[in-house]
Amino acid sequence: MKEHIVISKATIDRLPLYFRTLRTLQEEGAEIISSEELGRRIGVTPEQIRKDLSSFGEFGKKGVGYYVRELMRNVGEILGLHRNWNIAIVGLGHLGSALANYRNFVSLGFNIKAIFDVDREKVGQHIQDVEVYSLSRLTEIIPAKNIHIGVITVPAQFAQQVADKLVAAGVRGIWNFAPVKLNVPEHIRLISEDLSVGLTSISYYLSRQLIDED
Amino acid sequence: MKEHIVISKATIDRLPLYFRTLRTLQEEGAEIISSEELGRRIGVTPEQIRKDLSSFGEFGKKGVGYYVRELMRNVGEILGLHRNWNIAIVGLGHLGSALANYRNFVSLGFNIKAIFDVDREKVGQHIQDVEVYSLSRLTEIIPAKNIHIGVITVPAQFAQQVADKLVAAGVRGIWNFAPVKLNVPEHIRLISEDLSVGLTSISYYLSRQLIDED
Repeated sequence: MKEHIVISKATIDRLPLYFRTLRTLQEEGAEIISSEELGRRIGVTPEQIRKDLSSFGEFGKKGVGYYVRELMRNVGEILGLHRNWNIAIVGLGHLGSALANYRNFVSLGFNIKAIFDVDREKVGQHIQDVEVYSLSRLTEIIPAKNIHIGVITVPAQFAQQVADKLVAAGVRGIWNFAPVKLNVPEHIRLISEDLSVGLTSISYYLSRQLIDED
Repeated sequence: MKEHIVISKATIDRLPLYFRTLRTLQEEGAEIISSEELGRRIGVTPEQIRKDLSSFGEFGKKGVGYYVRELMRNVGEILGLHRNWNIAIVGLGHLGSALANYRNFVSLGFNIKAIFDVDREKVGQHIQDVEVYSLSRLTEIIPAKNIHIGVITVPAQFAQQVADKLVAAGVRGIWNFAPVKLNVPEHIRLISEDLSVGLTSISYYLSRQLIDED
């Protein structure tokens, strides 16, 4: 019987940032990290770090810090990164092409198994060994290739109908890049990206600098 | 004399999410939002919402909620979105092209003023009226066009040298998409995107579903 770990929604939302930060730390050769430094990198207080991490076990040594590799492995397991997830990209425009060529996904256990587009010129091509199929074959290919997650990179006006097709074909998660709010059933995990969040954060800091110089 | 608002780093990191969520709410026609609903959408507790928002003024009405439009305008001002920021994209591959074509930036006050690439075929082209310059002209063009923020979408192995050039040319902020840790001086605001964070979050929820069905 597996143990159920109860973690708050806010902590869960921070877990991918923990994982990413720990991976960077490991690449930098760090073996131990203090809650102060981890907090600084993630952007929360050291108290929050200690609270978050205590909710899924003891990975720290008092007065020393957290063991980077051990903590990363555990956070990775909680995030389900020890499994393999099959994903499909719908829409082979600029962003779809960028994602299809993004190597980092593979190292995290995400395998791109199919790409869909409506453009006949693109259908039949291969991007990094992955075939581009006609969108009309989505309902057939998604179950055939056991695809768990659909990535939507089509123009906004087509995003909802693509989401409906993906759900009907059996995906469990949708990662949406179209700048539109999608409606999906409750059992579907939907994450919508907004690429302007990063720029907005930079804008905040630059505004402060300008004020400080006034 | 301008008033300095003291806001914690963790709250600041959530501000772009507040802004994005409020903008979506406004597009949906919502006039008032409760801290419970806002918290659910952003992924933090209602207590955290009330604490965050109280740190920069009174935008709520007890027992009713927050006024969406008023709160959005105020968060936007704190984020510096009432100014115009000039940005340059370095690297016109798939991702650079996707960003150069992304309309949402303009509506937030971010104006793409220049694009740089090393490919002679691309230099001289225009993407949505923005000229593509040779990377060798970066040092000249950045100050000439008063560019505040540089966006790095070059391959990882070239990202640090592009960052160095951008800093020397006078940008104040860098938005990095290359999967590598960059070193920049302290006065530069650096935001590094990791496109796998969204997928990782979906992975977490799908793992839970699978366990629940075991």
